[in-house]
Amino acid sequence: MSAIQFSVKASDGNARLGAVRTTRGTIRTPAFMPVGTQGTVKAMLPEQVRATGADILLGNTYHLMLRPGADLIERFGGLHHFMNWPRPILTDSGGFQVMSLAALRKITEEGVSFQSHIDGSKHMLSPETSMTIQHKLGSDIVMAFDECTPYPATHQVAKESMELSMRWAKRSKDAFGTPDRQGLFGIVQGSVFEDLRKVSVDALLDVGFDGYAVGGLAVGEGQAEMFDTLDFTVPMLPDDKPRYLMGVGTPHDLVGAVARGIDMFDCVLPTRNARRAHAFTRRGAINLKNARHREDPRPLDEQCACVACRSYSRAYLHHLHKAGELLVHTLITAHNLHYYQQLMAGMRAAIGAGTFTAFQKSFEVEQAAGDIDPL
Amino acid sequence: MSAIQFSVKASDGNARLGAVRTTRGTIRTPAFMPVGTQGTVKAMLPEQVRATGADILLGNTYHLMLRPGADLIERFGGLHHFMNWPRPILTDSGGFQVMSLAALRKITEEGVSFQSHIDGSKHMLSPETSMTIQHKLGSDIVMAFDECTPYPATHQVAKESMELSMRWAKRSKDAFGTPDRQGLFGIVQGSVFEDLRKVSVDALLDVGFDGYAVGGLAVGEGQAEMFDTLDFTVPMLPDDKPRYLMGVGTPHDLVGAVARGIDMFDCVLPTRNARRAHAFTRRGAINLKNARHREDPRPLDEQCACVACRSYSRAYLHHLHKAGELLVHTLITAHNLHYYQQLMAGMRAAIGAGTFTAFQKSFEVEQAAGDIDPL
Repeated sequence: MSAIQFSVKASDGNARLGAVRTTRGTIRTPAFMPVGTQGTVKAMLPEQVRATGADILLGNTYHLMLRPGADLIERFGGLHHFMNWPRPILTDSGGFQVMSLAALRKITEEGVSFQSHIDGSKHMLSPETSMTIQHKLGSDIVMAFDECTPYPATHQVAKESMELSMRWAKRSKDAFGTPDRQGLFGIVQGSVFEDLRKVSVDALLDVGFDGYAVGGLAVGEGQAEMFDTLDFTVPMLPDDKPRYLMGVGTPHDLVGAVARGIDMFDCVLPTRNARRAHAFTRRGAINLKNARHREDPRPLDEQCACVACRSYSRAYLHHLHKAGELLVHTLITAHNLHYYQQLMAGMRAAIGAGTFTAFQKSFEVEQAAGDIDPL
Repeated sequence: MSAIQFSVKASDGNARLGAVRTTRGTIRTPAFMPVGTQGTVKAMLPEQVRATGADILLGNTYHLMLRPGADLIERFGGLHHFMNWPRPILTDSGGFQVMSLAALRKITEEGVSFQSHIDGSKHMLSPETSMTIQHKLGSDIVMAFDECTPYPATHQVAKESMELSMRWAKRSKDAFGTPDRQGLFGIVQGSVFEDLRKVSVDALLDVGFDGYAVGGLAVGEGQAEMFDTLDFTVPMLPDDKPRYLMGVGTPHDLVGAVARGIDMFDCVLPTRNARRAHAFTRRGAINLKNARHREDPRPLDEQCACVACRSYSRAYLHHLHKAGELLVHTLITAHNLHYYQQLMAGMRAAIGAGTFTAFQKSFEVEQAAGDIDPL
């Protein structure tokens, strides 16, 4: 039996309400996974992340293999113990970041050889090494090693890249040695081309995975093209496995992708933007750098129950930002993650009640209603 | 009746166990006040500061008058409400920092005219404006406006500086309009000269204050000279008022000053050094930058119950530091403040039990015992 179990409890249109059960706890879907790149969700204690409603975190294989190193984390009992997060963790394969961050990278059939962006040390990431590293990290969900096809790509380039990823997917499954303790997800590639996505899905289904991710999106194609790609790709995926849209996205992206049948998401937006004083709210974005907040006694959102909105005015947050105080990162990150988790909870409730279309409309109306700063 | 009440519950040698009662709660003495310069204890939520055991915070008049401004804080219901710290706050007078931070400062009998180090705007700090600002901030303990005599100073320079501070102390008391809501402390000056300290204490006693601070120390004179000055100054102070040693200090400084009869302290050391990866422990200083912590599974201190020591290894803290992660500041700050508060709690218990001398010895033995990194 697989280490992870997925069940769909209700659906509304293409949107699905479900749960991914792991040995470390249940992930309510649709789920948003905060990103803890280097063994921490930036500026947050794990208990603060949990308080926002997160069931699962994402860790980055590329960063962790370089610093502090997978062997060290394994000796510390795995990433959960090292970073003090006892709940589920998904690790990516390193495939995306080795191409975007590493120096002197060289891609071959074997994998990607590269030099660390930190100290120039030489490393190799391949399906086999990625599985070994993710095993040492001890994550609950392991991602197959793939190449994230750059955008835009010609059909021929996208085809060759996808085919390489499918050969790597098979090697990932072959090298994956812990189906009793970890789940393994495959990643659909094929850029924005329907025929390639179909070939990719079929290849992955032949191998067989515990879940299916849609990769190669949120790489510059724009929301319309992303949604178009989901429109033809998601129906190709099996109903009885979780579907994970990697690296997405804005609140609008999440709602639109859930409407198209996606169950899981990760994105740095709520955490990274928080550190730029950019808050996400029901009523759109708020840029706390803006001087109009200087004397504003209101919280970011009167209806929000996060630690920032319960006790702090926009004027205080603006002051912390102007004064360069670290606390502002903690407070806005907590707010943004809370907003994202509330958005997911709202979608789950709406799917369960069969009112997802109404939820979508009211989401759009609220987002457009105002209190919007330009980013 | 004064807004603050002080009582001594026990004494052991010159060390005193007591309590300062304010309308916002009781301060157990000897007390250490974490510094919240700009309306926040850096990298900490107020509830995290409280969890370390702090009864009272210090706020800086100079910083707050410039940003966000005393009028704004007053409109927000005072500093307690603005920063979400409902317990006692002591504000300094701005006298020390206007001389150390401001640009183009000019000191006259009237006060100090200066330009903001932030935006060059022109301001005046005087006994009267300092009282007005501290009233707007709404602190529970207000400090008289003084000049912190630089060190070293000739007897003549120290005398003239002290005499100016005493005239300003009288003007501070005359301008102080809220004895029913705030306490007012005077500040003894006179550098390291016994005769000048005596003149200063007598001048302050003539005016009458709710507490007496020893100023002009921890400015480069060294611990021996500081203790010598306390040895002759503290006995001049009345027994029935709290005694506050400003800007001190290291754990050794605190223990030695409590032994000499000091009741209250503030210092940036535990918070500032935390952000340099420097931890204070029972067994001396630990520099987490040091590579020897890279694989160390132990917490900073196995006997410490702080949020960092309960759940995180030195290896993890070292990793966070190397990776430039903000969380390391929160964790080490929480540890250092917890250590300082535990040290104060230990001294209070020892004074109550009449075992302060034994406490001092065991403190010295433990500090010298090892696990010591050079700073």
